[in-house]
Amino acid sequence: MSEKELIESGDMKIGWVRNHMPVLSIIRENFERDQPLKGHKIAMALHVEAKTAALVETLAIGGAEVAITGCNPLSTQDDVSAALNTRDNIECYAKYDCCGDEYYEAIDKVLDMKPDITIDDGADLIFKLHTERQDMIPEILGGCEETTTGIHRLKAMDKDGALKMPVIAVNDAMTKFLFDNRYGTGQSSWDGIMRTTNLLVAGKTVVIGGYGWCGRGAAMRASGLGADVIVTEVDPIRALEARMDGHRVMAMTEAAKYGDIFVTTTGNVDVLTRKHFEVMKDGAILANSGHFNVEINLEELTAMADTIKIVRNNIKEYNVGGRKINVLADGRLVNLAAGDGHPAEVMDMSFANQALCVKHIAENKLEAGVHPVPRDLDMYVAELKLKSMGIEIDELESHQTEYMEGWECGT
Amino acid sequence: MSEKELIESGDMKIGWVRNHMPVLSIIRENFERDQPLKGHKIAMALHVEAKTAALVETLAIGGAEVAITGCNPLSTQDDVSAALNTRDNIECYAKYDCCGDEYYEAIDKVLDMKPDITIDDGADLIFKLHTERQDMIPEILGGCEETTTGIHRLKAMDKDGALKMPVIAVNDAMTKFLFDNRYGTGQSSWDGIMRTTNLLVAGKTVVIGGYGWCGRGAAMRASGLGADVIVTEVDPIRALEARMDGHRVMAMTEAAKYGDIFVTTTGNVDVLTRKHFEVMKDGAILANSGHFNVEINLEELTAMADTIKIVRNNIKEYNVGGRKINVLADGRLVNLAAGDGHPAEVMDMSFANQALCVKHIAENKLEAGVHPVPRDLDMYVAELKLKSMGIEIDELESHQTEYMEGWECGT
Amino acid sequence: MSEKELIESGDMKIGWVRNHMPVLSIIRENFERDQPLKGHKIAMALHVEAKTAALVETLAIGGAEVAITGCNPLSTQDDVSAALNTRDNIECYAKYDCCGDEYYEAIDKVLDMKPDITIDDGADLIFKLHTERQDMIPEILGGCEETTTGIHRLKAMDKDGALKMPVIAVNDAMTKFLFDNRYGTGQSSWDGIMRTTNLLVAGKTVVIGGYGWCGRGAAMRASGLGADVIVTEVDPIRALEARMDGHRVMAMTEAAKYGDIFVTTTGNVDVLTRKHFEVMKDGAILANSGHFNVEINLEELTAMADTIKIVRNNIKEYNVGGRKINVLADGRLVNLAAGDGHPAEVMDMSFANQALCVKHIAENKLEAGVHPVPRDLDMYVAELKLKSMGIEIDELESHQTEYMEGWECGT
Amino acid sequence: MSEKELIESGDMKIGWVRNHMPVLSIIRENFERDQPLKGHKIAMALHVEAKTAALVETLAIGGAEVAITGCNPLSTQDDVSAALNTRDNIECYAKYDCCGDEYYEAIDKVLDMKPDITIDDGADLIFKLHTERQDMIPEILGGCEETTTGIHRLKAMDKDGALKMPVIAVNDAMTKFLFDNRYGTGQSSWDGIMRTTNLLVAGKTVVIGGYGWCGRGAAMRASGLGADVIVTEVDPIRALEARMDGHRVMAMTEAAKYGDIFVTTTGNVDVLTRKHFEVMKDGAILANSGHFNVEINLEELTAMADTIKIVRNNIKEYNVGGRKINVLADGRLVNLAAGDGHPAEVMDMSFANQALCVKHIAENKLEAGVHPVPRDLDMYVAELKLKSMGIEIDELESHQTEYMEGWECGT
Repeated sequence: MSEKELIESGDMKIGWVRNHMPVLSIIRENFERDQPLKGHKIAMALHVEAKTAALVETLAIGGAEVAITGCNPLSTQDDVSAALNTRDNIECYAKYDCCGDEYYEAIDKVLDMKPDITIDDGADLIFKLHTERQDMIPEILGGCEETTTGIHRLKAMDKDGALKMPVIAVNDAMTKFLFDNRYGTGQSSWDGIMRTTNLLVAGKTVVIGGYGWCGRGAAMRASGLGADVIVTEVDPIRALEARMDGHRVMAMTEAAKYGDIFVTTTGNVDVLTRKHFEVMKDGAILANSGHFNVEINLEELTAMADTIKIVRNNIKEYNVGGRKINVLADGRLVNLAAGDGHPAEVMDMSFANQALCVKHIAENKLEAGVHPVPRDLDMYVAELKLKSMGIEIDELESHQTEYMEGWECGT
Repeated sequence: MSEKELIESGDMKIGWVRNHMPVLSIIRENFERDQPLKGHKIAMALHVEAKTAALVETLAIGGAEVAITGCNPLSTQDDVSAALNTRDNIECYAKYDCCGDEYYEAIDKVLDMKPDITIDDGADLIFKLHTERQDMIPEILGGCEETTTGIHRLKAMDKDGALKMPVIAVNDAMTKFLFDNRYGTGQSSWDGIMRTTNLLVAGKTVVIGGYGWCGRGAAMRASGLGADVIVTEVDPIRALEARMDGHRVMAMTEAAKYGDIFVTTTGNVDVLTRKHFEVMKDGAILANSGHFNVEINLEELTAMADTIKIVRNNIKEYNVGGRKINVLADGRLVNLAAGDGHPAEVMDMSFANQALCVKHIAENKLEAGVHPVPRDLDMYVAELKLKSMGIEIDELESHQTEYMEGWECGT
Repeated sequence: MSEKELIESGDMKIGWVRNHMPVLSIIRENFERDQPLKGHKIAMALHVEAKTAALVETLAIGGAEVAITGCNPLSTQDDVSAALNTRDNIECYAKYDCCGDEYYEAIDKVLDMKPDITIDDGADLIFKLHTERQDMIPEILGGCEETTTGIHRLKAMDKDGALKMPVIAVNDAMTKFLFDNRYGTGQSSWDGIMRTTNLLVAGKTVVIGGYGWCGRGAAMRASGLGADVIVTEVDPIRALEARMDGHRVMAMTEAAKYGDIFVTTTGNVDVLTRKHFEVMKDGAILANSGHFNVEINLEELTAMADTIKIVRNNIKEYNVGGRKINVLADGRLVNLAAGDGHPAEVMDMSFANQALCVKHIAENKLEAGVHPVPRDLDMYVAELKLKSMGIEIDELESHQTEYMEGWECGT
Repeated sequence: MSEKELIESGDMKIGWVRNHMPVLSIIRENFERDQPLKGHKIAMALHVEAKTAALVETLAIGGAEVAITGCNPLSTQDDVSAALNTRDNIECYAKYDCCGDEYYEAIDKVLDMKPDITIDDGADLIFKLHTERQDMIPEILGGCEETTTGIHRLKAMDKDGALKMPVIAVNDAMTKFLFDNRYGTGQSSWDGIMRTTNLLVAGKTVVIGGYGWCGRGAAMRASGLGADVIVTEVDPIRALEARMDGHRVMAMTEAAKYGDIFVTTTGNVDVLTRKHFEVMKDGAILANSGHFNVEINLEELTAMADTIKIVRNNIKEYNVGGRKINVLADGRLVNLAAGDGHPAEVMDMSFANQALCVKHIAENKLEAGVHPVPRDLDMYVAELKLKSMGIEIDELESHQTEYMEGWECGT
């Protein structure tokens, strides 16, 4: 595609999702009118695809100067990147399939703009700031973090006394993790798997590694598509929930024998390793929906393989002693690396939280540490979302509120 | 039934559930050996049916003297009550369909034993202690509360500075509310409705009032039985979840027009009132699964009715201008008043928590206020439960734990 | 209960279901006006419970003289039987828990009325006519058969040249088998199991023997209640469907090791036998939803058992070498013998077909053999049912009908 | 892409699906050995994508000379077409997005090979034979027809006395329509819609036009993805089934007001017309999964639209008085025109039936008219499929077969 075609394609994609992000659209109108980000510089490292672009535009329209790069080597869509670069006050450095060096150079370029606010998805910007560019930290008002894995990392830093700036855990907004991690990951993982493989989900045994919010989304949709689902967990309470939800639950060494399709969603390393590959069925399909590509140990798989070849776009077949093990999108986020990422409507809520939290950082002096999303912002997003869906709900009458606050009425 | 037949029937019921409460059985064995409750007196107000009896036995076997009465006028099973009274160190005052005076007299009798530990389901014992028998409070080491509504009440008391003793919020154990309130209420409410009405759930429009843990259980099972489900809520985030779970969401004034069966699970008053009764379809069925019988406003319905008659065991038909509105179990907990309550397996976890919390109170000096269930007790229950189900799960390897605690690995 | 109380209880039950059988109610009104059965004598052997009573009343109101007995020793409800006997032109001989001799004597008494029309559920009346009372056959205009098993039996007779009278296969009406066998059996089997055991279905492994219409109903509801479902089949196409529907499929010898609850729905003998009992888990629950009590081989189980005892109403525990195997309702139809049978709304369609087929027999001279339900009767039932549910559907416009009948429009 | 790249891409796609079509692979081995099609010429008009190529290869390997074109202007994949043309004895004329003239010219070219066997998907070849090339009919041994719509058309021809050759209704094989039309269309329609729109299905109201096998597949998967489903029907029995399956049922004029996404699956014309477009919500999405592009009346929609523009690949936005109505893939089969068609595993069964039926035609002299797939072929496909999935099922023991054939055992 020519640059012009790239831009047109990117513009079209951004236009489409903008129409399906009504909450962010209202915030955008307010930002345009009120210019709350006037004078701020925002550095971002997010998956550069159309929904993200709608957020970037919103921040720029609200007065900010924005520089952005990707947060995963395979999740950037080059047409969206090209389109973003045509906008005022936006600089985009993301490139699809960049190698490791390019990836980190782009992060440096973004930081070169001297931001006072950061937005991360996986905490790579903040990590860079704290390891190589500490001099910049004093100028930073705060950051936002999008994903469970990033927050996990930041809380670990904080616990070690290593976190030197305030960060809002956007992921932990109820209107974020309850929706994007469950309904978003649930659907988009299977969208990615189905379009990549063109195989039938019904009648397959699907193994879901992890029963956190992403895992239960992936399991719920697997069932909804007709699969027989096995869940693996390390937490006994989640394991019980998975079982009560109708799934089978067992250790991965056992599940590995039965699975036709595996989806890892734990946020941890080495969910699938040599001992699992050794017992898998011929034709097994492996996909990852966790943030980093560490859940499937591809080094061990590569070491075991007699041959490795590409058998369909985004599918690598590892031939292990005559058994074919198929890995999707090199074990990177299957919904983004082999699809278009989360549906627009869930990112609408997640990115509405991002935009509101950036404004919150710009307007308040926060202390270093990990902060929750203010409850009123969270509720505001929920209310706008319901309204955009045309849904009216009940309100408590005053005597009902009193009853809930009282304790004198009994049996 | 003669007293002897009552006792035999109660013994049989208790024996059956004991076999299906493996976690409580292990605790019972430990209690028998260790006598951790030796010298303690426990006053209880719970639904007196077979599973509760298994808990009462466990406490008595652990060394305690126990007195118990019901916590709802329609939930006592007289045969279980009779059987309990044959046990050493147990006194049971509960009676089915007792009138208001009897109900409160029984509470007084239980307190007359001078307990040092209490167990409530709805906080009636604690309320009585704080209003009429304050003199007894200094002797009390602590109490346990079983249900959401009771905890709500106790937290309101605590906020008002009115709570003068420590109480453990057993309901808030993850192995309690995630299971008993969801899978327990979900199944047992529909068990109660189906056996009481002998009507088809498939093809009906079911309206669930409230999308808390009980409400989502009831909604999930309604879908699983083939109903088309409408949810009403006052919380916008829960409303969004209900919608994303595939249900319709609307205000009750609108839902009231479409419902064939209504199930209230809010814990609040006046979920269904005159304005709803006025627009309901002929033949509508109303059931409550919330703790108190305040969710369906029967006073208003009675005032509107031309005639009221019993049309099947546990079903009252209110004829309102030619339309029949059928109320199950007088608006009391339909799973207990028109069924056998929660399945044994979920009460196994809930009551294992109760037994362990009673022991915790006996062994620790707690301050006045509402306390959470200690996390290790909760996990212990989950682990025993998984084991009893023959389920093995993964354990984190040390390098996985390190990875989760670390923050230096990025993209 | 006194006779008077029995009658009152029966009347109440019949009144309740009559209100929930709108299609039968319309037919009843038409029958009352038109007297299409004037002068006919109808012998019936059906499960004598409230819905059946509504059919019996309809036939009597339509002018017929009716005699009825049960079609299963454990499915009669004595209060309904008593209430029926208070009606004009109706004689009911059914009794709960009658022994084998009484059961067959009652069939004889029914035939003593010299019927010209029969209604069977399992073909016991017709079998008796063809083996012991052949002299009566020439007077018989025809019979109706309610269930898959009965039709199976009648077709086998017909194939052997042994069937000497016309029979309408009411079960094969689409408004019967698609609904009553699937949604009816599906719900009522689980209603029966839940109320009898008070155990949790969620998190259990449920084994369904057979994936015919009853089996898929039972499997669908088991999933809907949170179970992990295994299906066994002998037909490869049905086995594939079960697998694609998300269930596991395997031979019963294998499934027997995993099941917590077994439900047989095959219509065949010996679905569960010694070799299965030998490998079952301690605590396994066995229920049958097939017509006859032959699916679970209780003789073999009895022979294997060290002790047999009643452990709850309708549950017998067979202790086999220390493992407890629990059989519900002695292996008889669990929805009827341990519950109230199918929900009223599905029997509404089934019995509307019965009433219309009886009228069809009375008005037409049919030849010996098994006849289908006339298509127009079937559609008439469906249309009345939709109307009673307040559902309007599309009608084909004339150019759409033409398109469907044409073949000239292509790509 | 260069021709070489096209061929490589096509070869890769064909290789992938071949590995996931185990039944067809066994037939292929047998055909290679036995050469049952030696000397036969087969003309085909099917969707030219990878699974079809696997069938074409099988026929050619079995000894036939094959010529093929597409059966829909938008369903051809040019890389697969290119790859097929590199094979011996195969000529492929299909081209993506060919205009009407090209489409019919390609059909003529295929017929120019003078086939003695035809394979159709929609009956375009047979229609051409009967209208313009009747002279060829005497040489034709028979044809196979793949889809419901084609069979509908052929039966209409036959009824009019217009069908002059034998045709096997491959669609009506149980291993075809029960699987491909339900699980295949169900999954692939949603795969197409999700990848084309990147929108969330959960929380949407989805309207399914028609509740035949395709419609119930589409409805089942919509529910499984979290949608609230409305079904429209013209057949009262199917309408009742849809309702009992938990969906809402209403006329399309009513449903049109509520739908967020519409999927038509009726096989009829004018399912969505002006009167529906007039009341649709802003942003409504329209997709078709029926065979022809006649279900959504695009002429009327075009006439109503102020502007029409492409807003994303495969999505046209019709602006009707300010409301946006989005049509996917120009109303052509959304799973093929905007996706990769059915999953390989279901086409495995469908095309196994095709291959076996072609062999059956070659080896038997059939009379003109529409013939069913021989039952033994159907069962053979099911058995091979189960085996390939590693599933073992029960076999009837002789006394069980006797019981099923007998009629003397009763209650």
